[in-house]
Amino acid sequence: MKLPQPLIDLIKTGRDAHLVTMNKDGSPHVTIVWIGIENDEIVCAHLPRNQKVRNIERDPRVVISIEAPTKSDYKLTEYAVLYGEARITEGGAPELLQKLARIYIAPDAKFPPMENPPPGYVTRIQVTRIEGVGPWMNASE
Amino acid sequence: MKLPQPLIDLIKTGRDAHLVTMNKDGSPHVTIVWIGIENDEIVCAHLPRNQKVRNIERDPRVVISIEAPTKSDYKLTEYAVLYGEARITEGGAPELLQKLARIYIAPDAKFPPMENPPPGYVTRIQVTRIEGVGPWMNASE
Repeated sequence: MKLPQPLIDLIKTGRDAHLVTMNKDGSPHVTIVWIGIENDEIVCAHLPRNQKVRNIERDPRVVISIEAPTKSDYKLTEYAVLYGEARITEGGAPELLQKLARIYIAPDAKFPPMENPPPGYVTRIQVTRIEGVGPWMNASE
Repeated sequence: MKLPQPLIDLIKTGRDAHLVTMNKDGSPHVTIVWIGIENDEIVCAHLPRNQKVRNIERDPRVVISIEAPTKSDYKLTEYAVLYGEARITEGGAPELLQKLARIYIAPDAKFPPMENPPPGYVTRIQVTRIEGVGPWMNASE
């Protein structure tokens, strides 16, 4: 689906993203990642072929949840839950991490911190459903 | 497992908790909830018998992830991921929500906002494994 503008605005401010992937035994695995948007897909980067990369290669179902800095009428934290289908592409991780580090850490941040990082992996997520509390809930196109 | 003190300290400051439960078809479901600690278990409350209550009744596997206000050496957000087994008990939701509202909203907050709320449900989670980045990682007892 096309991402609604309030969701794009939220993601572009650099909110930590809780990424759920599915383990081999059907149990969920959760880590926090940095996310960006490319071609209307959510993207995140991984230097090693870690558990989440292996999980997505086996089962494309993922969920990303993001806290917003805003509060609802009842003073609850607004948030977005993005259900989607992910795929892994090889390479490009250092470049994406460097781009996201300027948003998530500081405009002059250098990341990854090591010299000559491996090419790594990029996860690309097509969002299929948006849940949560906030203006992205009624903004789907 | 016994919860390590740094994790107890983190939870007691009222951090939003991303709760993963398992749908009937094996896909993950995510919402944000308020959490507390009772008898070394993580607790959260629900007024209606909602999707997460029904999911836990069918499949006790849950994950809670929490962002900390602190940063790691590389300026990444510290966080805790709590893997556990949950069970539902009936009643007590308004009382637990009122107690948590004083932490999550304000010391004088009234919650739930309605008069005569239903007794609802309380989720009680035994934590079996802690992942993430932060002092709770090396503090298990």
